[in-house]
Amino acid sequence: MARPVPFVHRVDVRYVEVDQQGVVFNMWYLAYLDDAMTAFLSEGGFPYTEMLAAGYDVRVVHTELDWLGPLGYGEPAAVEVAVSDIGRTSFGLRFEVSSAARLVVKASTVYVAVRIDGSGKCELPARLLSALGPVV
Amino acid sequence: MARPVPFVHRVDVRYVEVDQQGVVFNMWYLAYLDDAMTAFLSEGGFPYTEMLAAGYDVRVVHTELDWLGPLGYGEPAAVEVAVSDIGRTSFGLRFEVSSAARLVVKASTVYVAVRIDGSGKCELPARLLSALGPVV
Amino acid sequence: MARPVPFVHRVDVRYVEVDQQGVVFNMWYLAYLDDAMTAFLSEGGFPYTEMLAAGYDVRVVHTELDWLGPLGYGEPAAVEVAVSDIGRTSFGLRFEVSSAARLVVKASTVYVAVRIDGSGKCELPARLLSALGPVV
Amino acid sequence: MARPVPFVHRVDVRYVEVDQQGVVFNMWYLAYLDDAMTAFLSEGGFPYTEMLAAGYDVRVVHTELDWLGPLGYGEPAAVEVAVSDIGRTSFGLRFEVSSAARLVVKASTVYVAVRIDGSGKCELPARLLSALGPVV
Repeated sequence: MARPVPFVHRVDVRYVEVDQQGVVFNMWYLAYLDDAMTAFLSEGGFPYTEMLAAGYDVRVVHTELDWLGPLGYGEPAAVEVAVSDIGRTSFGLRFEVSSAARLVVKASTVYVAVRIDGSGKCELPARLLSALGPVV
Repeated sequence: MARPVPFVHRVDVRYVEVDQQGVVFNMWYLAYLDDAMTAFLSEGGFPYTEMLAAGYDVRVVHTELDWLGPLGYGEPAAVEVAVSDIGRTSFGLRFEVSSAARLVVKASTVYVAVRIDGSGKCELPARLLSALGPVV
Repeated sequence: MARPVPFVHRVDVRYVEVDQQGVVFNMWYLAYLDDAMTAFLSEGGFPYTEMLAAGYDVRVVHTELDWLGPLGYGEPAAVEVAVSDIGRTSFGLRFEVSSAARLVVKASTVYVAVRIDGSGKCELPARLLSALGPVV
Repeated sequence: MARPVPFVHRVDVRYVEVDQQGVVFNMWYLAYLDDAMTAFLSEGGFPYTEMLAAGYDVRVVHTELDWLGPLGYGEPAAVEVAVSDIGRTSFGLRFEVSSAARLVVKASTVYVAVRIDGSGKCELPARLLSALGPVV
């Protein structure tokens, strides 16, 4: 796996994401985390489209977010992703959204693997485990 | 068909939709129109879920919007919908988004009917024609 | 305060909120919670526009969400809101998003009060305390 | 002005933008166009933050969009921008959203320049004219 450590996913803040307080509205961070997760897995060797083609998907079951500061339009932003936990049917990621050297949001998310045939939760498939790499 | 004439679909402006200019950002109007279209068909007797169950869907192929004024958070809003055109495989709707008596956006959209089996464009099914009612 | 107990805020799921898994994408729940929070305060006697006019705003500093099930297009949805904590400069709300009798998401959020003159965090103003009512 | 001709703005389709038909929902294209417009002006020498600092903003008054094909998650996308019209208080841009060599959406938008002091529409300021360059 050629993914750099730490893995950092760039975010381009869009004008539509900035609310009348002049800062990115809270919900958009969940889109940033989702993007960062799929980029993380893709760089680890398991692009989302291949995951679906292999019959698997991931579903968010828990998220926690702490907002430490604002993010405005035109400010640079990036999400650092790390694996915090690997279970039998679930895994956890830890995220830090920063703007330059300033930490904006800390978050963690738990995902479960599911089969897309509707049979529900399943063991993490080998390619997903490989794409995740070790807990750090 | 028990749908009132004119048909008006209420919109609840969300905080997330208001940008740093303090007004609803332009893209959200397309969500309002989409909601209003499905409500219009539903009230006409063809709810979207039944359309899908019957094997049909509609796809936007053309939209024009004119912004005549702003809409702020907490302001009342509603979309008036009328049928402007009915063709063999397409139909057109005309929309007016208002806040109280003030006109905010005028828009028109052309939709085509498609089969959800992937075979593409098809003639407007009878239930859709019935739900649309006459051109006004 | 004439707000019913428990306070329940209706959600209209929009087509745009449903992803290719056929369920509401996770980020939209934060918009639902935000809407429910402002409706809760408004029904408690402190509409958001009056809060701004009084020189105050609230900012999300922490959120936790548990997804217990999916929500699809056309399904009824509502958010129940309760006060979980009241501090000197912050307060906590507890949310349950349900579809009919089925629990979909449990969440809790911590907000801080801020002055909109840029001077930052401040004690919860009296009207906000009154609108929150007691911890339950 | 060092802006390449034609000017092309890359779009990263987000998972949240893909609806249950498996394609980017129509409203997101307006966010893509907005992003492309600000990138176009920025590359022309007038970043949006500088426009605001200079006391100006732009407002969309008219948009037309034609959808020629779908865009799915993971597909490359880019918006080509060209100036179609320059008036006294308004200008028009022409957009083509493509995925690889495939044309997805054609659109055109009319913007007016406004002063952010609330005095409304104004003549296009010199830096904006310079950033637009000639009609093509």
